[in-house]
Amino acid sequence: MKNLFSGFLDATQILEDSTLISQYMADRTKHYKSLAKLVLLPQNVDELCRIASICYNNSLLMIPLGGRTGLSAATVGTGDEVGIAMDKMNKIIEIDEIGYTVECEAGVILENLQQAVSERGMLFPLDYAAKGSCQIGGSVSTNAGGINVLKYGMTRDLVLGLEIVLADGKILNLNHALIKDNSAYKLMQLFIGAEGTLGFISKVTLKCYPQVKNRQIVYFGVKNFEFVPQILQELRQRSFDIIAFECLSKVCHDAVLESMPQLRSPFQSIHHYYILCELDEKNSDAISEVCSELMESDIIQDAVIAQNDKEATLFKLLREAVSDALYLKGEVHANDISVPVSSLKLFLNDLNNLFRNSYSKYLLGVFGHIGDGNLHIYIINSNNESGEIFKNACLKSDHEIFALIEQYRGSISAEHGIGLLKKSALRYRRSETEIELMRNIKQLFDPKNLMNPGKIFTVEISPND
Amino acid sequence: MKNLFSGFLDATQILEDSTLISQYMADRTKHYKSLAKLVLLPQNVDELCRIASICYNNSLLMIPLGGRTGLSAATVGTGDEVGIAMDKMNKIIEIDEIGYTVECEAGVILENLQQAVSERGMLFPLDYAAKGSCQIGGSVSTNAGGINVLKYGMTRDLVLGLEIVLADGKILNLNHALIKDNSAYKLMQLFIGAEGTLGFISKVTLKCYPQVKNRQIVYFGVKNFEFVPQILQELRQRSFDIIAFECLSKVCHDAVLESMPQLRSPFQSIHHYYILCELDEKNSDAISEVCSELMESDIIQDAVIAQNDKEATLFKLLREAVSDALYLKGEVHANDISVPVSSLKLFLNDLNNLFRNSYSKYLLGVFGHIGDGNLHIYIINSNNESGEIFKNACLKSDHEIFALIEQYRGSISAEHGIGLLKKSALRYRRSETEIELMRNIKQLFDPKNLMNPGKIFTVEISPND
Repeated sequence: MKNLFSGFLDATQILEDSTLISQYMADRTKHYKSLAKLVLLPQNVDELCRIASICYNNSLLMIPLGGRTGLSAATVGTGDEVGIAMDKMNKIIEIDEIGYTVECEAGVILENLQQAVSERGMLFPLDYAAKGSCQIGGSVSTNAGGINVLKYGMTRDLVLGLEIVLADGKILNLNHALIKDNSAYKLMQLFIGAEGTLGFISKVTLKCYPQVKNRQIVYFGVKNFEFVPQILQELRQRSFDIIAFECLSKVCHDAVLESMPQLRSPFQSIHHYYILCELDEKNSDAISEVCSELMESDIIQDAVIAQNDKEATLFKLLREAVSDALYLKGEVHANDISVPVSSLKLFLNDLNNLFRNSYSKYLLGVFGHIGDGNLHIYIINSNNESGEIFKNACLKSDHEIFALIEQYRGSISAEHGIGLLKKSALRYRRSETEIELMRNIKQLFDPKNLMNPGKIFTVEISPND
Repeated sequence: MKNLFSGFLDATQILEDSTLISQYMADRTKHYKSLAKLVLLPQNVDELCRIASICYNNSLLMIPLGGRTGLSAATVGTGDEVGIAMDKMNKIIEIDEIGYTVECEAGVILENLQQAVSERGMLFPLDYAAKGSCQIGGSVSTNAGGINVLKYGMTRDLVLGLEIVLADGKILNLNHALIKDNSAYKLMQLFIGAEGTLGFISKVTLKCYPQVKNRQIVYFGVKNFEFVPQILQELRQRSFDIIAFECLSKVCHDAVLESMPQLRSPFQSIHHYYILCELDEKNSDAISEVCSELMESDIIQDAVIAQNDKEATLFKLLREAVSDALYLKGEVHANDISVPVSSLKLFLNDLNNLFRNSYSKYLLGVFGHIGDGNLHIYIINSNNESGEIFKNACLKSDHEIFALIEQYRGSISAEHGIGLLKKSALRYRRSETEIELMRNIKQLFDPKNLMNPGKIFTVEISPND
C-alpha cells in the first residue's frame, strides 16, 4: 500500500511504525483501538488532494487527524483506515490587519495562531485547555468552545471561510474571507463540527477581534445555585461587557485547593458555589458598586476583585485547575452537557437529587461555562470502588442524565462532539428524521463512505445503530 | 382546489381574490409576475403542517411568504403555486430574561419583536429599513443583515433554534435555545438564507443582548476612500466597541441634503467620502482624542461628535436617507455586493475606473456597511435616458461588476439573496460543484421539488440554467 504514495511523499511523510501510528491514531479517550494501515503527512493541499484521490480510487478509508486532543474518540482507528495528519500543513498564510482576519492551513497549532495574531495587535479569541497542541482544523471539525464563548461565540462564530478537500480529492473553496454573503446554502456550515466525516478541512479563514482593553477578574462566593444565573442577569442588565462567566461547585473548588497547596481561597468563609467572572470594564468602581449591591440583596455572599495581574492569574487558575484536580481524587467519568441557561437551576436540582438517591457513594463534581448553559459533570470513584461496578453505574447514570437533558431540551454534547463515545446517545438529542437527513447528507459529500466512517452515526443502517 | 383547505381554514384564511393575491405574491422588485392559485394563512403550526401535507399529497407547489419586503424576487409566483403567508402566526411565545433569548412564531414583525424585547430591558440587535413590515421568518430565510452587523453579526449569528415544517408536513425541531451543542451536522444552518426552498420556518429562537450603554455617534469627512478602512483599523486598534461603521460617497451625501432641505451637513467644507460611526463608549474625551489624532495624521479631514440625542438622530438620518434620496434622482439599478474589507480600496478603484470609462453618463452612488465589506452600488439614470438603453447598459455593467467581484473573491449578494433576480449570476460566486451539491441537498429535503421551486437555482438541469 505504501507504494501508492511513495512516488510523491518522502519517508518522513509516510509512517508505518506501529508505535508511531498508535500515537497518531489515539485521542484523549481511552478504551478505543488506535490503529491504522498507514499514517500520511501531506505538506500542502496538492499532496492532500492526491492522497484523497488515490484513497478514493482504491476505496481506502480515511481519517483526518488534527492535534489528537479530542475527547470523543472521533479520530481513533480500527486498523482498516489510513490516518492523514495535518501536522506539516502548518503555515499561517495571511494576517489581515485591515480586515481583521487570519488565513492559515489546518495544521496550525491554536496557541501559535493566537500568538501570531496578538503580535499584530489583534485578538483571536478561541481559547481552551488544549491550545498548546490542538490544531485549528480540529477546532473547526469539533466546533470547539472554551472559555470565551460567552462574548465571542464557538469556533463556528469565528470561521469566515474554509477550503475543503472532498473524499475524491476535489477542492471546495467556501466563502473565503467574507463577512456578508447571501448566495444560497452555506455549505461551509456543514463541515464545522462534522468531525471529519464529510471531508478534509485544509485551510481556514478566521475572524479576529480588537484586544481586550480593561480586563477585570471578579470571584464571587454564592450560597445556592439558584443565584448563579441571577448574577449573570444582573451584570447584563447593567450592560457590562462579560467575557467569561464560569462556575464551580464547592467540591471542585476544594479539590483545586487540595491539589495545589500553594493556592489559597480568596475568601475566609466557605461557599457552595464559586463564580469566576471576566469583564472588559475600565471603571473598577462600577464593579465594586455592583458587588456591594449584589451582597446587599443577598444574591452573593462575597466578592473579590483581582487587584493586579498576578491576582487575576491566581483567580483564573482556581477555575482552570478544576479538571486535573478532580482526576486526582479517583477515576473520573465525565459528561459535557448543556441546557438553556434559564433551565440550569431546575436541571441541577434534578441532577443533585438523582445523585443523592442513586449514586451517593460517588463524588459529583459540577463546573463549567455556566454563561453558555454548559456544565461539565464529573462522577468520581473517590472511594476506589471496583472498576467494573463503577463503570456500570456510570453507564446507567449516563442514560438517566441524558433523559433529564432531553426533558430540558439540552445537549448531550455541548463542546466535545459525538465521535464514537456518544454515538449511541445521539438519539437523546436528534430525532430519527434528523439522523436520517444527516446520513443522506454524508452520502452526498462522501458517496463511498470513506471519510471517517462509523463516527457520529453509521451510514448503513444496522440493528445496533 | 379551495375545497382541499376549507375543511379546516376559515374564509379569512383562504384568499382567492386576484388583487389580494397579487399583493401577497409581490416583493419590492418589479418586472416579475405576482400570481398564485391561492394564498393561505395558517394560524398555527398544526394548520401549516396540514396545508403542507395536503400540498405534498397533491403535488402542489408552495411559496412561503413573509412580509413581502424582499429585494431579490424570492417570493414571487408564476401562478402555478400556492402562497402560504405567515401573517397570522405572529405570537411572541417567550422572552427569557435569564437566558437572554426570545422565542416567537415566524410571522412576528421585526419592529414588534425589537419593541417587546426592549420593554424587558434587553436588545434584539437585528435592524434594517424594512423592520416595520418584514417578518422574522423572512429575516431568517434571507439571513438579513442591516446596520448592526459589525458588532452583532447577520441574522444567522442571532438564531439559536428553528422549528421547520418540511414539504411533506413533517416538523423538525432544530436546536431549541441552546448556545452550545456539538451533536453532529447543524441542519439548522441550511435553512438560514435558503429563501424558502428547503421548508417553512415556523418558529424561531433568537439571541438577545444587553442594551447599549453609552451610544455615541461620530461623523467623519474623508478626502479619499483609501483612508476609510484605515479609520476602522485605527478605532479597532484602540479597542473601541464599534456598533456600526457606514460610508457614503459625496454623491450620496449631496443627494440626501438635496432631498431633505431641512437637513444640513455637519461640516463647513466638502468631502469625498463621509463615515457614520456608532460606538459604545462612556468616555467622550477618548473619542475627541482619537478624532484629533486622526486629523493630525491627515487620515480624516474633519469629525463631529453628536452632542445630544437630537444630533445623533440627524447624523443617522444622513445615512438612512441615502437610498430614498438616490431614487429621487432617476431610475435606479442597484447591486448589493461585498468584498473582503482589505480589498475594498482596490475594488472601488476598479469600479470607479469602469464607470469613468464606460458608463460616465450615469450617476454612480456608492454607500454601505463598509465595516462588513458591504457596498450598495446604485447606477442612476439621472439624465433620463431611454429606459431600454439604460436597462441594457445596466445588464452589461452587472456582468462587468460581477467579474470584478469574482476577481476580489467577493459576493454578488451580500444581503439581499439570490431569488430570481440574481439566479443567472450565481455562477460568479459558486462553483459548479457547489451548485450541484446544493441541488442535491434541496432534493434531500424536498424530493418532489415543491418548495419555492425555481428560486436560487433550477433543480432540473436545463440549458437555460
